[in-house]
Amino acid sequence: MTITENRYGKSRIRVARIIRQKDHHDFHELTVNIQLEGDFDSSYTEGDNRLVLPTDTMKNTVYALAKNPAVAEPESFGLLLGAHFLKHNPQVSRARVELAEHIWQRHGPFSFTAGAPHRRTARIDATRDQTIIEAGVAGLVLLKTTGSGFEGYIHDRYTTLEETSDRILATELDATWRYTRTDISWSPSWHAVMALIIDTFAAHASRSVQHTLYAIGEAILAHCGQIDQVHLTMPNKHYLAVDLRPFALENPNEIFCPTDAPHGQIEARISRQR
Amino acid sequence: MTITENRYGKSRIRVARIIRQKDHHDFHELTVNIQLEGDFDSSYTEGDNRLVLPTDTMKNTVYALAKNPAVAEPESFGLLLGAHFLKHNPQVSRARVELAEHIWQRHGPFSFTAGAPHRRTARIDATRDQTIIEAGVAGLVLLKTTGSGFEGYIHDRYTTLEETSDRILATELDATWRYTRTDISWSPSWHAVMALIIDTFAAHASRSVQHTLYAIGEAILAHCGQIDQVHLTMPNKHYLAVDLRPFALENPNEIFCPTDAPHGQIEARISRQR
Amino acid sequence: MTITENRYGKSRIRVARIIRQKDHHDFHELTVNIQLEGDFDSSYTEGDNRLVLPTDTMKNTVYALAKNPAVAEPESFGLLLGAHFLKHNPQVSRARVELAEHIWQRHGPFSFTAGAPHRRTARIDATRDQTIIEAGVAGLVLLKTTGSGFEGYIHDRYTTLEETSDRILATELDATWRYTRTDISWSPSWHAVMALIIDTFAAHASRSVQHTLYAIGEAILAHCGQIDQVHLTMPNKHYLAVDLRPFALENPNEIFCPTDAPHGQIEARISRQR
Amino acid sequence: MTITENRYGKSRIRVARIIRQKDHHDFHELTVNIQLEGDFDSSYTEGDNRLVLPTDTMKNTVYALAKNPAVAEPESFGLLLGAHFLKHNPQVSRARVELAEHIWQRHGPFSFTAGAPHRRTARIDATRDQTIIEAGVAGLVLLKTTGSGFEGYIHDRYTTLEETSDRILATELDATWRYTRTDISWSPSWHAVMALIIDTFAAHASRSVQHTLYAIGEAILAHCGQIDQVHLTMPNKHYLAVDLRPFALENPNEIFCPTDAPHGQIEARISRQR
Repeated sequence: MTITENRYGKSRIRVARIIRQKDHHDFHELTVNIQLEGDFDSSYTEGDNRLVLPTDTMKNTVYALAKNPAVAEPESFGLLLGAHFLKHNPQVSRARVELAEHIWQRHGPFSFTAGAPHRRTARIDATRDQTIIEAGVAGLVLLKTTGSGFEGYIHDRYTTLEETSDRILATELDATWRYTRTDISWSPSWHAVMALIIDTFAAHASRSVQHTLYAIGEAILAHCGQIDQVHLTMPNKHYLAVDLRPFALENPNEIFCPTDAPHGQIEARISRQR
Repeated sequence: MTITENRYGKSRIRVARIIRQKDHHDFHELTVNIQLEGDFDSSYTEGDNRLVLPTDTMKNTVYALAKNPAVAEPESFGLLLGAHFLKHNPQVSRARVELAEHIWQRHGPFSFTAGAPHRRTARIDATRDQTIIEAGVAGLVLLKTTGSGFEGYIHDRYTTLEETSDRILATELDATWRYTRTDISWSPSWHAVMALIIDTFAAHASRSVQHTLYAIGEAILAHCGQIDQVHLTMPNKHYLAVDLRPFALENPNEIFCPTDAPHGQIEARISRQR
Repeated sequence: MTITENRYGKSRIRVARIIRQKDHHDFHELTVNIQLEGDFDSSYTEGDNRLVLPTDTMKNTVYALAKNPAVAEPESFGLLLGAHFLKHNPQVSRARVELAEHIWQRHGPFSFTAGAPHRRTARIDATRDQTIIEAGVAGLVLLKTTGSGFEGYIHDRYTTLEETSDRILATELDATWRYTRTDISWSPSWHAVMALIIDTFAAHASRSVQHTLYAIGEAILAHCGQIDQVHLTMPNKHYLAVDLRPFALENPNEIFCPTDAPHGQIEARISRQR
Repeated sequence: MTITENRYGKSRIRVARIIRQKDHHDFHELTVNIQLEGDFDSSYTEGDNRLVLPTDTMKNTVYALAKNPAVAEPESFGLLLGAHFLKHNPQVSRARVELAEHIWQRHGPFSFTAGAPHRRTARIDATRDQTIIEAGVAGLVLLKTTGSGFEGYIHDRYTTLEETSDRILATELDATWRYTRTDISWSPSWHAVMALIIDTFAAHASRSVQHTLYAIGEAILAHCGQIDQVHLTMPNKHYLAVDLRPFALENPNEIFCPTDAPHGQIEARISRQR
């Protein structure tokens, strides 16, 4: 028998950092996942732990390295962590680090409320040959009340959906985009992509979730030369128009029932080049 | 045997409403719970459904009444629903309606992103004699990086907690406040209370969660003559300072581990008069 | 202003205990909530912590007292904890302890898999005058494929539900029952009540959720002299028969769509005497 | 720009089926995800829906095909669904179907309670050239109170974990195994693998999660000639021994604090051949 792939690490490492500025505090709260690949077969087959870095140590490493200013941006903190594990562990061939940062809204110099529910994310995939850096957003809820239709699709014996030129379009978007360089101003770049996503979603004359997904990916690649690839996942969060005719009422796209299950699920990867 | 209390109804009725203004759309998304009390003993003891309004009909009623402009504020929509069930069902002695509205952030005339994770709530308790109206907020996450200590408490044989004059204070606050009148401008009142909660939390020199909870309740009652009672629940969401000494590092309140379990749980009701 | 009610404590204290028997291990995993009431006004109004037992100490107390054999049953562990806080804290007038124990299925002397998703619960409400002991179950999912109808209810202008003499009945039952004595064999009593709930649900010719709820409460009070009160909450977890007619197929109660929202919500307290 | 990968479909399609036997009913409840790949680029780039099968139709198809006896096993129902979408949609090149079935415990001929929280799963990956069938289990919680240690690992400057020859080992295992044939008795095979997982976990002298993971994979491949590959994910659900020394108490592996975050995360794929 052969171990054809393996990885191990620590998930859901939660860390918060206060950065004490002169007259105010910055606050960052991250959840970090670390996964290592490498020369670990004997730990599986023999229970030989001599090359095993305990996942508890990975957690401690996150806390110790959170002293570094790199913690202020998930991309730079992930790069720091990935490099650390490769440098100090010759048996490790690949370190993956996934980070998700909460959004806080400031109220005065030392106080915050939870901001929007989406998280700023970064994903580092570091080997001794190359390091791939992806940034992203998870759980970005977008909704528009018009400017979206769905028509002209296949009708077969199981079709009951009615075509519509005007519906609510809502999604909880996950996006990751790949950087071609490492000398990026991470936070300005992240905010620029976020604005492109939100503005494109708002402005697009949508014929389907697929159609809007592609428009978003296209906008990012068109405006951001430092990005060569975008992956987008856009569930279709259905808002079903309620049939009020039994109550002698009309419903000209006013009253909707939001549902969680089932939901459409659309995803694609869009690249600058073939 | 006796049925000493009973209630029944429909929970998690999800409804969304587009209100089409001249040059933009307003959008409201609510989750509604309805609970009725009254002359229902025979449905329990005999399976006699002649006085039972099906919970499915309650759901339909929510959708039909969502045509009314009252839907734009949870307090007014709850009042409409409570009055409806009492008026049309003589066997009902009490109608409770609980409503939670999502927070959306506008991006242009027709487009939105999910806002902060807290919900604006209202609770109507209507009988034929009186109607109690409470507004509130659920899940308001507040955090301050300084201005909070916890000292001078009881030490017994099971005490290990160290006293501190500076810690992170974080909570996920639930508040409800009771109105003494019904001629309130609901939304301005709600926003005024929200600002009092957030500002008091930020400004208070906190000696404990209890101390800050009371300060918030006091501020609301001091500034809002239309409110005579405030109920506050403030879990203590612990951010534990990480011990970095094993790594030869200091941690002057910089690096924290957020935890979900266990958590402190503090609640109180504060009234204008005894 | 007056604090008209207050309580504080620690929630979600998770504790597991191995009890080492001669040739096998017993294993208990509990989540404990503790809430104290008493002379705590000055902690709210003045930030005076001199009478405050920290919630961190409550957590430590749970771990220390888990050495006691009483931990093997939630009722007896809750009694131990409630008595402890009253005995050592004269400023405390009431201690509430809520406990939930996971269900494990044994596989050999030292190994287990997670059992059914419901939890065995207990709730202790202890003052210096009396102690109320309730046991219960939370999250007991029950489903029957026949033997349930819903007919003869009110029809109004918002009614669309069709009457049915045969439907799926499903619920996620929460029950608590109050004991009149403290010299109970807690585990045999708990298992006896559980069997009554499950058997009554299966055998009952149900005309509504209310009807079955009452039958369950009646069965418990009829068979268990040591119990004088039962509180039952039974959401109606809807399984909607799918309309297959558009596909030229019949659906004689075969194919269903389970839904989470909305759901019916029925609850009642049934007592031996008025 | 190029769409380098894309897929779309319907997720969280919930379906339940009563199968009416002579003297009892069988009951199946499944959650189904469908994802199609194929000639869909124009739907993204042009908003041209002419080749798009709506996800609503996929949902309807699940309900209609649930009339087929194949619904009784997730593997066979997934095969039926995958073949349907390929047969009727020439533009589809690949159909993936993921199914998860709830576990129910029977109480009499028509009544059930929810069983263990894990789900029986199947995953069909069907193209016009080949069909890959994987079965599995999701969320199988396993725990042993002894027979597990973790020693001999790397110690670096961030190590604080103490070596132990006796600890609680707990995991929430996800497994999928790939079949080499389609003429399998799906349910007996599934139950045989489940027994191997549970028994191997119980009997294994574990030196690490990795070590036990491999033992489980090895046992499946050794006993099941119809399986050529096993993928296992085993988070390390930590039960931390509580330090009772501050309370002058010993804790010889008796009292533990279960935690959810962080957790170890170990996964590997084990194959019969290279």
